[in-house]
Amino acid sequence: MSTTTATADDGLVVTERTRLRRMREKGSHRRADLDAVLAAGFLCHLGVTVDGTTMVVPTAYGVDGDRLYLHGSVASRSLVQAPDATVCVTVTHVDGLVLARSVFEHGVNYRCAMVYGVPRLVTDPEEKLRGLRALTEQSSPGQWEYVRQPSRKELAATSVLALDLTEASVKTRSGPPDDGDSEDAALGLWAGVLPVVTTFGEPVTDPALPADFSPPAHIASRAGSPADAAR
Amino acid sequence: MSTTTATADDGLVVTERTRLRRMREKGSHRRADLDAVLAAGFLCHLGVTVDGTTMVVPTAYGVDGDRLYLHGSVASRSLVQAPDATVCVTVTHVDGLVLARSVFEHGVNYRCAMVYGVPRLVTDPEEKLRGLRALTEQSSPGQWEYVRQPSRKELAATSVLALDLTEASVKTRSGPPDDGDSEDAALGLWAGVLPVVTTFGEPVTDPALPADFSPPAHIASRAGSPADAAR
Repeated sequence: MSTTTATADDGLVVTERTRLRRMREKGSHRRADLDAVLAAGFLCHLGVTVDGTTMVVPTAYGVDGDRLYLHGSVASRSLVQAPDATVCVTVTHVDGLVLARSVFEHGVNYRCAMVYGVPRLVTDPEEKLRGLRALTEQSSPGQWEYVRQPSRKELAATSVLALDLTEASVKTRSGPPDDGDSEDAALGLWAGVLPVVTTFGEPVTDPALPADFSPPAHIASRAGSPADAAR
Repeated sequence: MSTTTATADDGLVVTERTRLRRMREKGSHRRADLDAVLAAGFLCHLGVTVDGTTMVVPTAYGVDGDRLYLHGSVASRSLVQAPDATVCVTVTHVDGLVLARSVFEHGVNYRCAMVYGVPRLVTDPEEKLRGLRALTEQSSPGQWEYVRQPSRKELAATSVLALDLTEASVKTRSGPPDDGDSEDAALGLWAGVLPVVTTFGEPVTDPALPADFSPPAHIASRAGSPADAAR
């Protein structure tokens, strides 16, 4: 893993809260690294403080250019109260268990992005549609055009928030345990990595449909492919 | 999915912040449901407010009885500054993409637990070892006995936090899309679920070892098994 610091070209601003304090060798502020982690997922953990309590809520996200979009019911506490406060959006992919020769050296191989910012409630109807399209296509490419798009009433019932991709950091760990050349190597124990593999399974047709109703190609083609890699 | 409310037997206290406001049909305050979600994972997202900023940090956890344990370097900002403040620990398993006939009805099948509380810094040496054992065995059953256990120096470099499993809620969604009997059914589109399957792969031996060094049974036996089911 390489150590990088932000430059003007990187597009990410290094601030007191994104400065990488620990495990520096695993950190990056490069925009390309951020894009790669975000492109590989569709679910984030949104951290927001509501009425003095920190909540961590799993929710879908979408990326369109320099913005990350979140959505939710207009009745949702965590989303609607989020604007005007800084939130943290974390996207994590688990790649494996790092099994070392000592408990202390155990760890996880992962890719993680943390994005900070004050989300903006999207009010422009065109941007709202663009945000919802990004959210839909992030998890399910092809669905925006295949299914019925939102009605005026559905749009009114949905809040869309935009977060600029400016203040963020990426951390990754990959590879074998770090104690291969330590004195623990003399213990003669097995060490290595137990991979965690996330894939899409075979599509399950809605029981309300005929059992022989085949999914369209943009869905059927995903079976067996990684669910945590760029689409 | 069933709707339940907490009783004395359930062991979980329903408070203003764990009361299920939305999607009630997917919520539970039953201790058994909480245990099932926690037992199926090893990585949580810890939400903590440090210096006024909410951070969401992926980190390992372990469960021992009525307590959830977290650990980290004594130099870690998010962990060491966590005590005395309420944190939120969220564990999420993604089970599938819910592909409906309209964008609006799209969703995710998931199991999610949120635990709130003020973590306690573990100072008792015996409990500290018990917490680290729970953390190790949560992801890697059998490793605590197989590998070298923590030295005095390593214990001193590690913070262990305990969080009581008293204030928590569980949300789940499973099954097909909800619009099978809506007027959108007349669109004649395919709908259903694209499962997300998380499994352990074949163990990868540390390159520092001979290539024919086979992993012990407690590791080798996990290849191909679900990585998000109770172990």
